[in-house]
Amino acid sequence: MTHDTSPRSRQSPTADELRIWRGFIETAQALNARLGSRLHEASALSPGDYAVLLALSEADGRRLRSSELADAVDWERSRLSHHIRRMEGRGLIRRDDCAVDYRGAEVVLTDEGAQAFRSASVPHLRAVRELFIDALTPEQLDQVDQFTRALQTRLSSSDR
Amino acid sequence: MTHDTSPRSRQSPTADELRIWRGFIETAQALNARLGSRLHEASALSPGDYAVLLALSEADGRRLRSSELADAVDWERSRLSHHIRRMEGRGLIRRDDCAVDYRGAEVVLTDEGAQAFRSASVPHLRAVRELFIDALTPEQLDQVDQFTRALQTRLSSSDR
Repeated sequence: MTHDTSPRSRQSPTADELRIWRGFIETAQALNARLGSRLHEASALSPGDYAVLLALSEADGRRLRSSELADAVDWERSRLSHHIRRMEGRGLIRRDDCAVDYRGAEVVLTDEGAQAFRSASVPHLRAVRELFIDALTPEQLDQVDQFTRALQTRLSSSDR
Repeated sequence: MTHDTSPRSRQSPTADELRIWRGFIETAQALNARLGSRLHEASALSPGDYAVLLALSEADGRRLRSSELADAVDWERSRLSHHIRRMEGRGLIRRDDCAVDYRGAEVVLTDEGAQAFRSASVPHLRAVRELFIDALTPEQLDQVDQFTRALQTRLSSSDR
């Protein structure tokens, strides 16, 4: 598939379209940053720790191949392996080196990690409710659902 | 102001609300990542370089105090100063050390930086149109505008 180069697609966005685009992307960043600082305030977890623990806690047997974990948190393998090592040192996860294949060793959630995740989830989900869900009307939440699907569809059908 | 602890705000989000929240935040991240890789493909600029050049190109006299620049790109001062040094080495910006006050030296866009920004803007804005604007209906764009305002209002009235 080639990039669309029809006349309209070659036009720059209008000032209004750009303002909406920047509002969208900056709001998502501001929300992420605020949730990260709330998480830090309420627990010893960084947003990266939380993402790893979330992915493992949702996985079958609370374990994932490192390649699957990298996909789940959408990081480069090298960034993940540094992060994994630090989390292992803190007892939040462990590597199961007996289960190594071409997709890497398995990473397993420890009981301590599961406990840290549960404790951090309560204030985190409360913050998600306060800063996102309760800030929108039910109609707006539904609109968010619709347009994120439209954007995801476009992302998966367009060139990388 | 204290965090809202009324009964509803203490409830966890429903599975559906959480799905919408995660869809929102993951879509914004995926869009950022895709735009970053398109930028990299079409120019020698990283998303961080682009953000700095954008802020400077919109500033009066194409110059900002380093503290103002840090606010504009929403980075920690230390991250910015490393980045600034590398961009200075590439001739994209220069530091005006004659204009130092408590807000730091001024950072100035060079002609070379302005040229690099203009060249990168064309494919970048085309990608914004393709992946965001043209993926949504005009009604959806208007909805995005409304709900990002609602989220920003909530962010500015709530605790950090």
